[in-house]
Amino acid sequence: MTDRPLVVVSNRGPLSFELEAGELRTKRGAGGLVSAIGSAIEGTDARWVAGALSDADRAAAERGAVASDGFNVDLLALDETDHRAYYDVISNGTLWFLHHGLWDLPRRPRFDRAWWEAWDAYRRVNHAFADHVAAGAPQDAVVLVQDYHLALLGARLREKRPDVAMVHFHHTPFASPSELRVLPDAVREELLRGLSSFDACGFHSARWASNFDSCISAFGGENAMTFVSPAAADADDIRTVAASDACARALAQLDDEVGDRKLIVRVDRIELSKNIARGFLAFDDLLRTRPEWRERVVFGAFVYPSREGLPEYQAYRQEVEGLIERFNAEWSTPTWTPILYDATDDFPRSVAALRRYDALLVNPVRDGLNLVAKEGTLVNEREGVLVLSRESGVFSELADACLPVHPFDLVGTSDALHRALTMPDDERRSLHEAGARTVAARTAADWLRDQLLSV
Amino acid sequence: MTDRPLVVVSNRGPLSFELEAGELRTKRGAGGLVSAIGSAIEGTDARWVAGALSDADRAAAERGAVASDGFNVDLLALDETDHRAYYDVISNGTLWFLHHGLWDLPRRPRFDRAWWEAWDAYRRVNHAFADHVAAGAPQDAVVLVQDYHLALLGARLREKRPDVAMVHFHHTPFASPSELRVLPDAVREELLRGLSSFDACGFHSARWASNFDSCISAFGGENAMTFVSPAAADADDIRTVAASDACARALAQLDDEVGDRKLIVRVDRIELSKNIARGFLAFDDLLRTRPEWRERVVFGAFVYPSREGLPEYQAYRQEVEGLIERFNAEWSTPTWTPILYDATDDFPRSVAALRRYDALLVNPVRDGLNLVAKEGTLVNEREGVLVLSRESGVFSELADACLPVHPFDLVGTSDALHRALTMPDDERRSLHEAGARTVAARTAADWLRDQLLSV
Repeated sequence: MTDRPLVVVSNRGPLSFELEAGELRTKRGAGGLVSAIGSAIEGTDARWVAGALSDADRAAAERGAVASDGFNVDLLALDETDHRAYYDVISNGTLWFLHHGLWDLPRRPRFDRAWWEAWDAYRRVNHAFADHVAAGAPQDAVVLVQDYHLALLGARLREKRPDVAMVHFHHTPFASPSELRVLPDAVREELLRGLSSFDACGFHSARWASNFDSCISAFGGENAMTFVSPAAADADDIRTVAASDACARALAQLDDEVGDRKLIVRVDRIELSKNIARGFLAFDDLLRTRPEWRERVVFGAFVYPSREGLPEYQAYRQEVEGLIERFNAEWSTPTWTPILYDATDDFPRSVAALRRYDALLVNPVRDGLNLVAKEGTLVNEREGVLVLSRESGVFSELADACLPVHPFDLVGTSDALHRALTMPDDERRSLHEAGARTVAARTAADWLRDQLLSV
Repeated sequence: MTDRPLVVVSNRGPLSFELEAGELRTKRGAGGLVSAIGSAIEGTDARWVAGALSDADRAAAERGAVASDGFNVDLLALDETDHRAYYDVISNGTLWFLHHGLWDLPRRPRFDRAWWEAWDAYRRVNHAFADHVAAGAPQDAVVLVQDYHLALLGARLREKRPDVAMVHFHHTPFASPSELRVLPDAVREELLRGLSSFDACGFHSARWASNFDSCISAFGGENAMTFVSPAAADADDIRTVAASDACARALAQLDDEVGDRKLIVRVDRIELSKNIARGFLAFDDLLRTRPEWRERVVFGAFVYPSREGLPEYQAYRQEVEGLIERFNAEWSTPTWTPILYDATDDFPRSVAALRRYDALLVNPVRDGLNLVAKEGTLVNEREGVLVLSRESGVFSELADACLPVHPFDLVGTSDALHRALTMPDDERRSLHEAGARTVAARTAADWLRDQLLSV
């Protein structure tokens, strides 16, 4: 593929550190990005540059690069105030909202003085990453920069190290031109200039690549090469978990709770783009308009809190929990609770739910990919039906292996759930097999190869 | 121009009716659309078909077309339940939000069963208008259909009356393709098919026409001819008001209140797209960061309630009023109240404010045109400076006659207000003269001619 040395750069690394009795110990990192690309990188010679996010990480950073658990991790200590502004205000509070179209525009965003200072901090953190990579990257390395946190890294790295090849990969959607207009002109230009200074920009779906191209056409910027490369689920990892004792225990417990009823499942972070509230509203419509489902179906919601430092996420969690209470109060009977809510981030239990579902609801407002649709397909044991939003990146791969839903259409979602739960065996099998073929067709190594072929 | 007979169709007509002691009397209608096109139609032979919106209107509808006040008005009685669904749920609660990009997508819209029934009602009301026009329009008439309320009228009218030419004009922005995806597929298709069955579709600004073309390219539909024709302010009407005694009295009162301070003015409906809250936040930034303005400037906000039947508008009004209270509590001195808030819809008083401003703030999140920018330019007596959002349709006409602002950028807006209030006389004069030339260059007759030339 390439014999050039490889450097991966991301905000969060594949390992984090803990201090135990004065000793630094490594811990496998969590998060979607790490699970999507970690298996592609693990065991290679690649150097992985990431931010030091805790005191233990910063202590590790001082000691230099660490080889552990199959990774060569090189942590970078950052100014803590800058890092908070870069991470909370710009990355998660601005760029995430921008690319997912999540603004409530009459109210947010507000580019006030604190925000403009945060944008300066975002630039400084990007430059700090660039300078660190510039100082440490081997001659002629290929540098794979991950996600919207690091959009400005390329412009700076290019100046210092013209020998390296640079790829940027967005794990989120990319905003359309009309959405990108929400950024102040100077910021929009700096962002596009930053991204187009990479040799190539990658996306999980052709829609996001096409949005990026349209933005470059509409607002100018060098034409970076774009490529499309959906991430693969880590089949070995999830099958290992599915075969574990912890998962077997969780499945037995879930069987007890569900009994011989049908089971709808969702597994998500509680996140504004995931559309959890409308999922429950559609379920309420199902129970209201098709009384035959009362006492005959359980909605297992394995959804766990995320980004609780942002007030928008706290508010959304409250709304979601309010709906669960309301619908459980309205529909429960002495022997049946319609919504089974589990907010603990318990991976074996989530995998047990994926093994057991009759319908898997993945209905995001918008999503870069949505790996859970692939993970469910990999481990489900009942030929369950995937009910999938047209606005997820993975829809372009799984359109023929799902019941498509429009995320804002409660009636369409309710109808799709009904159809999923009543689908004849042969139809279910055929959908499931189509999904299994698609999911098996790509591995993490394919994803990595696409990055390297792009430069 | 044309000697074909003319029929105008809009939800709200140029006249409404009142019952006084059993007698029907006409009253000149209010609203932006009527003021924008009424002066073009007044005194012509055109027939104006509009909905009957009150009991008196419905009584008038029973008696057939009425000639009064320079208009030939033909009111159409509609099923009241259907009309409410068509007007509140679809027109103002869905299409307005869609075209202005005002959704809070994690929460709204929700296409539930009531919404789908409202969409059926929207179609029925559009068909009722089409059938009424089909029955009454003279042979070979040109039918000018106004605004987003009546997007489906053309498809039905075309079937019944192939002899007539049909033009649709959007007084709002038009959604970009990514925004149009928010509608359910079937609805999006019906809407685009409906609009593209007109012979031509008109818009106030090239941006909205280009969005419409992009939607047709992205989702299919016949390619309707598009044209761009910004509405003109009614110069005679506003100058008559400006010369009235009521306006003189209001100006004297305003002079008392403002004294020798500088005056920032805004005149708007309290409406989610108008960006009233951020205007006050920018003003707060101005007072905070440039202490020299304390006690030296007044912000006159002539903003009056609108669409109070929609909970989103009530909530926004509360937020706006909360900000006014907060900033007045924070900055007031015994002799100075920084924000002068007037929520009465008093046109002579608003015109007095337009005569008197040093800076006119027109900072919408997005706006089809925004006629107040032109009206201010027509009557202002101090060579005041227009601070204008890049996201208003009128920006394409007045870009060289204003200080442009990005509606989400509080710092940029604060800076622009400061610049407007400190601009040297010759610069102000040159901006003002550029604006006056542009505004004088178009009349209501030009707008009407553009409609007729389009078919």
